[in-house]
Amino acid sequence: MKVGIAGLGRMGRRHAENLARHVPGCELVAACSPVVEELEWAGRELGVPRRFADYEAMLASGGVDAVFLVTPTTLHAQQIVDALQAGKHVFSEKPLSLELAECRRVEEEAARHPGLKVMIGFVRRFDAHYQSAYERIRAGAIGKPFMVRSHTLDKNDPSGFFVRFSETSGGMFLDMSVHDIDTARWLLGGPQPVRVFAAGTVAVHEGLRQWGDVDNGMAIAEFADGSIAYFGASRTMAHGFEAQTEIVGTAGRLTVGPVPRADDVAIADAHGVRHECTPTFYERFAGAFLNEARDFVAAVRDDRPPALTLHDATEATRIGMALRESLLTKRAVEL
Amino acid sequence: MKVGIAGLGRMGRRHAENLARHVPGCELVAACSPVVEELEWAGRELGVPRRFADYEAMLASGGVDAVFLVTPTTLHAQQIVDALQAGKHVFSEKPLSLELAECRRVEEEAARHPGLKVMIGFVRRFDAHYQSAYERIRAGAIGKPFMVRSHTLDKNDPSGFFVRFSETSGGMFLDMSVHDIDTARWLLGGPQPVRVFAAGTVAVHEGLRQWGDVDNGMAIAEFADGSIAYFGASRTMAHGFEAQTEIVGTAGRLTVGPVPRADDVAIADAHGVRHECTPTFYERFAGAFLNEARDFVAAVRDDRPPALTLHDATEATRIGMALRESLLTKRAVEL
Amino acid sequence: MKVGIAGLGRMGRRHAENLARHVPGCELVAACSPVVEELEWAGRELGVPRRFADYEAMLASGGVDAVFLVTPTTLHAQQIVDALQAGKHVFSEKPLSLELAECRRVEEEAARHPGLKVMIGFVRRFDAHYQSAYERIRAGAIGKPFMVRSHTLDKNDPSGFFVRFSETSGGMFLDMSVHDIDTARWLLGGPQPVRVFAAGTVAVHEGLRQWGDVDNGMAIAEFADGSIAYFGASRTMAHGFEAQTEIVGTAGRLTVGPVPRADDVAIADAHGVRHECTPTFYERFAGAFLNEARDFVAAVRDDRPPALTLHDATEATRIGMALRESLLTKRAVEL
Amino acid sequence: MKVGIAGLGRMGRRHAENLARHVPGCELVAACSPVVEELEWAGRELGVPRRFADYEAMLASGGVDAVFLVTPTTLHAQQIVDALQAGKHVFSEKPLSLELAECRRVEEEAARHPGLKVMIGFVRRFDAHYQSAYERIRAGAIGKPFMVRSHTLDKNDPSGFFVRFSETSGGMFLDMSVHDIDTARWLLGGPQPVRVFAAGTVAVHEGLRQWGDVDNGMAIAEFADGSIAYFGASRTMAHGFEAQTEIVGTAGRLTVGPVPRADDVAIADAHGVRHECTPTFYERFAGAFLNEARDFVAAVRDDRPPALTLHDATEATRIGMALRESLLTKRAVEL
Repeated sequence: MKVGIAGLGRMGRRHAENLARHVPGCELVAACSPVVEELEWAGRELGVPRRFADYEAMLASGGVDAVFLVTPTTLHAQQIVDALQAGKHVFSEKPLSLELAECRRVEEEAARHPGLKVMIGFVRRFDAHYQSAYERIRAGAIGKPFMVRSHTLDKNDPSGFFVRFSETSGGMFLDMSVHDIDTARWLLGGPQPVRVFAAGTVAVHEGLRQWGDVDNGMAIAEFADGSIAYFGASRTMAHGFEAQTEIVGTAGRLTVGPVPRADDVAIADAHGVRHECTPTFYERFAGAFLNEARDFVAAVRDDRPPALTLHDATEATRIGMALRESLLTKRAVEL
Repeated sequence: MKVGIAGLGRMGRRHAENLARHVPGCELVAACSPVVEELEWAGRELGVPRRFADYEAMLASGGVDAVFLVTPTTLHAQQIVDALQAGKHVFSEKPLSLELAECRRVEEEAARHPGLKVMIGFVRRFDAHYQSAYERIRAGAIGKPFMVRSHTLDKNDPSGFFVRFSETSGGMFLDMSVHDIDTARWLLGGPQPVRVFAAGTVAVHEGLRQWGDVDNGMAIAEFADGSIAYFGASRTMAHGFEAQTEIVGTAGRLTVGPVPRADDVAIADAHGVRHECTPTFYERFAGAFLNEARDFVAAVRDDRPPALTLHDATEATRIGMALRESLLTKRAVEL
Repeated sequence: MKVGIAGLGRMGRRHAENLARHVPGCELVAACSPVVEELEWAGRELGVPRRFADYEAMLASGGVDAVFLVTPTTLHAQQIVDALQAGKHVFSEKPLSLELAECRRVEEEAARHPGLKVMIGFVRRFDAHYQSAYERIRAGAIGKPFMVRSHTLDKNDPSGFFVRFSETSGGMFLDMSVHDIDTARWLLGGPQPVRVFAAGTVAVHEGLRQWGDVDNGMAIAEFADGSIAYFGASRTMAHGFEAQTEIVGTAGRLTVGPVPRADDVAIADAHGVRHECTPTFYERFAGAFLNEARDFVAAVRDDRPPALTLHDATEATRIGMALRESLLTKRAVEL
Repeated sequence: MKVGIAGLGRMGRRHAENLARHVPGCELVAACSPVVEELEWAGRELGVPRRFADYEAMLASGGVDAVFLVTPTTLHAQQIVDALQAGKHVFSEKPLSLELAECRRVEEEAARHPGLKVMIGFVRRFDAHYQSAYERIRAGAIGKPFMVRSHTLDKNDPSGFFVRFSETSGGMFLDMSVHDIDTARWLLGGPQPVRVFAAGTVAVHEGLRQWGDVDNGMAIAEFADGSIAYFGASRTMAHGFEAQTEIVGTAGRLTVGPVPRADDVAIADAHGVRHECTPTFYERFAGAFLNEARDFVAAVRDDRPPALTLHDATEATRIGMALRESLLTKRAVEL
């Protein structure tokens, strides 16, 4: 299976390295990026033979079975459609789109190409610890699951990156909480959302106010089967990145990631007894990003459905957008 | 300082034992209860000399400086007013009342007796671990606090007690979450609430539906200063009682009670590595109930304000009632 | 029960406060100390009516049913004998003596006064968490116990106190490890020691070498029933005081004090996720010191044997002395 | 780099799978085993083209650059010598040998082939968490390290495998504690051992007595630079496999593996709050086994020294044998 990657920014380079070196059964044969240095890096470091300044050229050039999209969110939907029409399997970073209509357009296009695989990278589904929780639930360890409490916390970045990024990211709930939303849907068995409420505050980064965004937020979602979920998000943590998910069932509770340890080393020193923390999401989920690529390649190779559907991605966007609407209107939003 | 206690049920007996044996500077001289056996117990076990079948008789009998009310919630407000009018200091179990007008009536009556102390037993304010968090916050350990996430979880009681109790308790948010509400207000510096939203589900105890109550719930509260808080409550836990509170500030986060350990003994056996849990709130807060009584007695003796005001209790009821309204109307409720 | 205390240094004052204020059923009526200020403090703060410059005068003065000895170790044995001959019950801080012959002399004297209670303060037996472990073992939670791993670690004290104290303390094993030795004997059911080996190092406090002492050490003890035990000790920890004991049985393991938390508050900040630690043994065992005094008073009042015997104290000294001998001779020592 | 593997038992198959599928830069081209089914498996599942019934035939056949030895311990030394004389790089599972003379013979033979790499698989040096501790120490995080406390605990295997295996394994210290010994030497900077003492007990598996072996043991080692170390080992744990190592320095302490979690999922259920444990060493160190093979292949490819030397392996055997001698003689053993 021959793969072309689009986008060689920070995350793009990581995906490219995984595909070039660590994913059995695939070959990274092409890359495209508008940045000359990035393409040079792909040739020099990873030996990617064919390099393109634009995506269309890569699609048109032939010799590629699948594309990996690690491009800005606003491009995802159209690039997926283009790839499908060019007969390529597609992996795209999350989120699918910030527009519900776009999500549905992609779903419809994909339906016209039943032989092609499309998967959006909700990376937590591929993390060993989340998978362990999922399997315990399926094995009945907590009875019937009915409640999730999940949060994603970023270490504070004083550089102001968050503020600039907020203009196009769709805001904290669509950028960060989509992971918690998708995780909750996955662990609860995909219930239908009926109502959400969100609240937030600007604790540190005043510049976020201009985009209607916040740096700390919390939300509740109710589902048609009676399940409920809490989502928390922060961009101002002092200790590091943290992804924690609790799933409560009628016979017990599981907590994935109760403490955000960088490693399994306890330090006893003048600060007490402590664990250092993962600085960013990448250290936490490095293994999951690799599993995700492997799983997608295996799905194509074995012609089996990917681990999650485009509709899962649409639902995450739909709920995320409702959270944003609730944050702005200060009302509960019905879905 | 001579104390009379009203109510000798499960919690009443615990308060009575503390007052009789473990609180320096006070003497338990009177008790009232409609249950003959309870009064006999107080005489026999604690040597309480004067015992009454009704509260008015105890108030009228003289020789009592202060009363401890461990009676049904619906009686608290009037019993406090009666005690104040009889010139007694009053400690009452929470909540102050399930009616906002009643709360205010008590506040007004208390204002007419500036020499008398009145305190509602929000016991967490007297727990060593919560106090440690409070002092760290005041010392600036987490910068400016702006977010709380607090939950109270009960072990599932298959006997159906929760269902029967729900008829008069005001529901899960007023019965259980008032503790989290008061804790959040305390740790955040008493901000003004502006909006709440609540959701819940019946996961186990179907009988709760008849009272509009739930056995698992979650809520968000927004405050005028931009602070936000999450409150969670459950009556169906498998592992035991759990009270956990996170306080997030601009420079760090504190978590009180990250794991509900019954003791500081780790067990490694066929079930893994584990801590057994406190079965009920009482084991968790036994020391705090004692501190609470000591603090109240010291406040009376030293003529200083109790650790929390009647208005704190009113606010907790006001927010708790708004949560219940939100749960029933499925809308955000403005305060 | 009327109590006189001998010794009002740091630990003496704590015992005195407990006896004066927190132990039901006893009255602190006398105190002796060679330090005038300490006696004044006892009179002023605790209202101790009778104060003596020397121990003999206190014993002779009458009106005292029991004495609490919080005096230098070298005085314990003779003071116990004197108290017994004066007809007093005796509580003495550990260790009983640094001389085995002295231990036995005290045992013999006590045997002549069967109506008098004598107890040495091995405080861990009265700690709630150690007691919880003990009760779990008796309930069969770990099958048959056969191995203990126990350590006592002090926070480094750069003042040099340890070095000066070492001249008379008997060294680290007799001063600190006696607690671990007694705990191991207690949890293992009092097996007969047959062989020990000890090693140590001077990592920080060079001055200890002049007394043949070390600031970090470890030891192994073998018992006649096949049980084995490890004891560790340190005076140079960066994080605080730590007492941790593992007990292994044929069906599981218990660990008392797996993490030396000062409180149940997790801090997430620039140092990671952490617990602050208890600075000294006193914060860790404050409740146990109180329980210990209560238990002794109750044993006298109810005329029942104290929780541990003089022979337990002798055995702890005997094993501790063998550890010291092994450290100095670099050989295994047979008992 | 073309690799041949000798031994396709449980661990052999795991090494073979890693080499065939997950180690970049190497090709598994040959395998030898006396068991026909194992060779068939290697051909069928891993596509290993050349398969041999005996080791000499594989060495003689040509086309192999390096061998991986996953054979019985008694064969290691001679097989390494044979491979070196045949001009092959060698990776061998630990221990190097149970005979010191054999260890030295291998060291000498290796010295005659400076162009060939030889590495013994002390897998913990390749574990991410142990490496994190090692790097923190090198960065000065705990000052000067001077004390290690390390244990390896196996889950009880009621099948009696341990008893049969004991006849040839060299006993618990040589089989299990060599890992702790090597880890201690690595983390302490390779100090010279001067004295050891060991003790053990048979708690469950009576059959071990016939081989002079135990199922639970503990040992102390002293080093010439004043460092000290404790090693613990057990074959009777109820909860699972556990490898835990504490390193104490003058400015702090690190603990690798404080709790043997199978995953980062906390379970709250009728058994309390708990983590399930890794059942065997393999789940705990699966990633380290892979890193180890990758590191060896990279060392050959880049012509750099392997991560540990043959002398490291000899020293681990030397100390392990002294522990066994101490266990049998009940005396401290000088080295």
